[in-house]
Amino acid sequence: MRFFSDNAASVHPRVWEALKAADAGDTAYDGDALSARLDAAFAEMFGTECAALWVATGTAANCLALAALCPPHGGIVCHREAHIEVDEGGAPGFYTHGAKLLLAEGVGAKLTPQSIAALIDPIRDDVHQVQPHALSLTQASEYGRVYTPVEIAELAAFAKARGLALHVDGARFANAVASLDCAPLDACRGAAALSFGCVKNGGMNAEALVLFEPSLADVVRYRRKRAGHLQSKGRFLAAQLLAMLEGDQGQPLWLANARAANAAAQEIAAACGNRLLHPVEINELFVSLAPAEAAALRAQGFDFYDWPAPAGAPGAARLVTAWNARAGDVAALTRAIASL
Amino acid sequence: MRFFSDNAASVHPRVWEALKAADAGDTAYDGDALSARLDAAFAEMFGTECAALWVATGTAANCLALAALCPPHGGIVCHREAHIEVDEGGAPGFYTHGAKLLLAEGVGAKLTPQSIAALIDPIRDDVHQVQPHALSLTQASEYGRVYTPVEIAELAAFAKARGLALHVDGARFANAVASLDCAPLDACRGAAALSFGCVKNGGMNAEALVLFEPSLADVVRYRRKRAGHLQSKGRFLAAQLLAMLEGDQGQPLWLANARAANAAAQEIAAACGNRLLHPVEINELFVSLAPAEAAALRAQGFDFYDWPAPAGAPGAARLVTAWNARAGDVAALTRAIASL
Amino acid sequence: MRFFSDNAASVHPRVWEALKAADAGDTAYDGDALSARLDAAFAEMFGTECAALWVATGTAANCLALAALCPPHGGIVCHREAHIEVDEGGAPGFYTHGAKLLLAEGVGAKLTPQSIAALIDPIRDDVHQVQPHALSLTQASEYGRVYTPVEIAELAAFAKARGLALHVDGARFANAVASLDCAPLDACRGAAALSFGCVKNGGMNAEALVLFEPSLADVVRYRRKRAGHLQSKGRFLAAQLLAMLEGDQGQPLWLANARAANAAAQEIAAACGNRLLHPVEINELFVSLAPAEAAALRAQGFDFYDWPAPAGAPGAARLVTAWNARAGDVAALTRAIASL
Amino acid sequence: MRFFSDNAASVHPRVWEALKAADAGDTAYDGDALSARLDAAFAEMFGTECAALWVATGTAANCLALAALCPPHGGIVCHREAHIEVDEGGAPGFYTHGAKLLLAEGVGAKLTPQSIAALIDPIRDDVHQVQPHALSLTQASEYGRVYTPVEIAELAAFAKARGLALHVDGARFANAVASLDCAPLDACRGAAALSFGCVKNGGMNAEALVLFEPSLADVVRYRRKRAGHLQSKGRFLAAQLLAMLEGDQGQPLWLANARAANAAAQEIAAACGNRLLHPVEINELFVSLAPAEAAALRAQGFDFYDWPAPAGAPGAARLVTAWNARAGDVAALTRAIASL
Repeated sequence: MRFFSDNAASVHPRVWEALKAADAGDTAYDGDALSARLDAAFAEMFGTECAALWVATGTAANCLALAALCPPHGGIVCHREAHIEVDEGGAPGFYTHGAKLLLAEGVGAKLTPQSIAALIDPIRDDVHQVQPHALSLTQASEYGRVYTPVEIAELAAFAKARGLALHVDGARFANAVASLDCAPLDACRGAAALSFGCVKNGGMNAEALVLFEPSLADVVRYRRKRAGHLQSKGRFLAAQLLAMLEGDQGQPLWLANARAANAAAQEIAAACGNRLLHPVEINELFVSLAPAEAAALRAQGFDFYDWPAPAGAPGAARLVTAWNARAGDVAALTRAIASL
Repeated sequence: MRFFSDNAASVHPRVWEALKAADAGDTAYDGDALSARLDAAFAEMFGTECAALWVATGTAANCLALAALCPPHGGIVCHREAHIEVDEGGAPGFYTHGAKLLLAEGVGAKLTPQSIAALIDPIRDDVHQVQPHALSLTQASEYGRVYTPVEIAELAAFAKARGLALHVDGARFANAVASLDCAPLDACRGAAALSFGCVKNGGMNAEALVLFEPSLADVVRYRRKRAGHLQSKGRFLAAQLLAMLEGDQGQPLWLANARAANAAAQEIAAACGNRLLHPVEINELFVSLAPAEAAALRAQGFDFYDWPAPAGAPGAARLVTAWNARAGDVAALTRAIASL
Repeated sequence: MRFFSDNAASVHPRVWEALKAADAGDTAYDGDALSARLDAAFAEMFGTECAALWVATGTAANCLALAALCPPHGGIVCHREAHIEVDEGGAPGFYTHGAKLLLAEGVGAKLTPQSIAALIDPIRDDVHQVQPHALSLTQASEYGRVYTPVEIAELAAFAKARGLALHVDGARFANAVASLDCAPLDACRGAAALSFGCVKNGGMNAEALVLFEPSLADVVRYRRKRAGHLQSKGRFLAAQLLAMLEGDQGQPLWLANARAANAAAQEIAAACGNRLLHPVEINELFVSLAPAEAAALRAQGFDFYDWPAPAGAPGAARLVTAWNARAGDVAALTRAIASL
Repeated sequence: MRFFSDNAASVHPRVWEALKAADAGDTAYDGDALSARLDAAFAEMFGTECAALWVATGTAANCLALAALCPPHGGIVCHREAHIEVDEGGAPGFYTHGAKLLLAEGVGAKLTPQSIAALIDPIRDDVHQVQPHALSLTQASEYGRVYTPVEIAELAAFAKARGLALHVDGARFANAVASLDCAPLDACRGAAALSFGCVKNGGMNAEALVLFEPSLADVVRYRRKRAGHLQSKGRFLAAQLLAMLEGDQGQPLWLANARAANAAAQEIAAACGNRLLHPVEINELFVSLAPAEAAALRAQGFDFYDWPAPAGAPGAARLVTAWNARAGDVAALTRAIASL
């Protein structure tokens, strides 16, 4: 019973169907009929004009966005524990040609205008110091925390006032929207670019880079090719994204899948009580767990990541539920934790 | 009836089967059971030790290889019409951090030791001039010409003598081997790295970067991640590659598909006579075609690329056959050309 | 008697004086009083608004300009024999983060609108091909040829029409202006950036990067620092440049020095007759010279570079005169060549 | 009376003499007789084989070293307040093609094996995290603290054990050696590369990059050219460095100048008492100073930098003495501080 991550889960049946339906030959690269529908499909989802490009990974989506928003000599503000800082193998440095990540603080890996100001206000406005050009938020954050529409609005206003272009890393954006129960745009309003994750949410290997300043798309298209991310049979990526956006009983697949994953996490959370290191808002749980307890769970067949234990905790673990979390597995884990 | 390119063709049924079979969750990235089999599978194919990494595109495969073989301040010898020079949107410059492509001549986009020497011998051995560090060949070439095992051996010996690491861009390596009817290794012996193409040959979105100097793999793995090419569900790329290598009636899929595409091209070639601008050795035909003739073919439902006409030709076209070329379409085109 | 190059010649006495006068401590970097005068001094020289930054080398001046005018995924048109292509150790690739030099043809290393159009017109407007963003001319060219004001105007108009930002590599711009006997601006009118060479013309180690679009200066100042070219005691570079611009008897030093060098070249040219491989317009001579003749000259104490012999020539040499060419040496070389 | 920095001070008379003596023409770039003597001169200074290259700035020296010691996908450990992190405008990102600075803690901007281990031990050995490849120390540190020979030996042993190549940023290395009164090598033993500062110590615009692994020099020479730091009249940089190394009364100029600057700092320090925020070991003083006190000093004609005040201090200032500190100015400042 795997609670490692959502990023290795199976592909949703409707995504498989879309892939098969895309098999017939079409124009290569992004000249196919499916890719041509992406801009309109995402504009409808967000209720605003945008351009949407497929790429194979969240790393590529994030880094193409950052490179479009920050020059090589500039800096990008992000949280000290942001995925782009901690877990992307230096990809931002590669794509931006050496721009600097500027690291701000914040509870639950969430930034605030105050924490950003504390970082950037002391930067001297001279050529000896890297100047901030962009701001990158993770929605939901690396600890599964969501920014509310009000928080997003405040951060976007702050970014605008400071001349920082706003990027949102939305590897689990769907889960955040499901949690917030808001319009998708309200979860990222003011962003110039959003990495809209699908792979963790039932896709195979397609993510969407959504550009709310469509003029960025021209440059990003060249850079996508230059990064080796323009696939010949791009229709298979477009098909996945379109399948995600398509509705069934009034609910698009991305939202249905995210709700399912979130619900499973809530079920487990109910059993965790004081073990919870962070409020559970999406499909990730960070729990205090002594080594012996972790071993006991593993002995019962549950797999998950150990996590660095915060001060005062005997140990910690990260549990992640996916769109296809099986009710029996979730119930079993819930019982097992309650019985520790 | 599409003769545009092989790079948008359908995915082979056995690849589809392999994809479906890989759906069950497994470890993310390249920690899955299928990815773990790649090194051995390619070692068996080539009869020599190697490391094999999946990536989504030939551009990424080529450029990861070049970056591993040439420092940023160095140069990579390739043909003036090489794909890496002409058609990859500057990706080599991105991946290598600005290394220089040094452009040599050669009939049919094929290099020779003589043409390379003519380029690099005049380079002064001082810091003002970019020094050659690597050699990149395309097997088969951009005009569908193959290097024979003897030619490969000569070029590899030359490269070794000059201290040039050898890369082979094998976007249509399968077609080249099918044409040469040789052991795969003989078509690239001496190479440090081979981009082994699968997408044009019945795959969906997986290419193999084969490293015959396995120690390169450690660095390339870090750079693959850094380039955003480490996919979460890498098992789907591994599955495609393994399906390509698996045999049916003693013939691996890559070879069967390449033979089918080559055979279709030969059938068409037989009708082209003096129109052929290059000998047809794989699945590409470059033909002299006056604008009115091209229009006539298109009026009959045949699609293909116009090509820059060489001196003396009234116009030109490129015709490409794919693994799934339909006999009826091929016969129809053959008749149509014969009737021009 | 050295006719190798002008780039190792002594420093002019007035430059020495200016250096000594700058010795007293002042604000570091470019915060000193001399650096603060540069913009105005160059604006007066050119009769138009501009920003001027000192750097230590022509390579840095050229490459900072190119990086400001062309994005990493773009291309820069230059002559096949341009210094930035042939002799700067790949520095443009470093500074531009891998932008591509696109190589055009032209007699005497001079470009024309026609030769540029022949190069760029066939470039497909798609992401697979690197698109031209900038044009770099060398005034005077690598063969010592000057672009007339009319030629400059035509090229600038062509560049503007094609959306190409114009850079002028003026390592010997002073010699070109002296040769043309025109207003300095007429020798580069339309350029966004000019590398104005001083080192070859009596300076020690300061070149000026003149930006005719002053808004570029903000970015270039950051990039200059980032490239390690912001010197602590920048006043010593500013002092050199200001000394060059200062007049004596109505003639600025840069012009007086260039005229002296050009005149020496003309004296030698008069003895060369049919040996001249290119018209002599500045302070460089390219002459046909058989190996035995070269040896004879060297035996008499003349030093110079051998040069690749063009077709039909038994051998070739490059002779360069500097601002401090001694009359006796020049006369001796003139006699020696005449006597061959 | 300027106590801003040592980096804008006048040039020492013996350096001026050496510059003038180098004026006569010689071979360009680093082919001149003076540049040819550098390796041997520094080998004698350090008592060990090395290669020494001139560059114009400490930024260039540091970054060429870092790029030689760390691949683009790697990380370089340095102190959170290291100059390369804080004050070089992102130059390390440019030169290393995006390698990451990994920031460790330590009192007085000094690192220890323990503080480095605390940073790097938690780094997972996988491709998602940037792996450390190099360690950069600043001798003396950004707060004017010196590493003793024992500390250097411990750090070098630690670096070696962890596979980290060692770089020493020695912008004020001379002051550190003067303070330690040790053999120069003992202040950096184990380093692969040392940036040996001269500009702050009486030079005009030459720093030495000393490579204790001389095989690195081949690559660095290419990269120096590529970075636009190979000056035509390199003899003027070599001349400065050689003047610094030459002795007078048994004491090389670099040591005499550093001792003079350090002594002036000690004189001021004696008046500072509890104001000192860090022990004064070289020529920098960090003092607690209330705004009104700072204003009072400035009203008396003393110039210096404000500095971020640490917790508990009403304000702070940095005072720097240079090789040419005038006894009268130093005494006046000493009295003025004592009288506050």
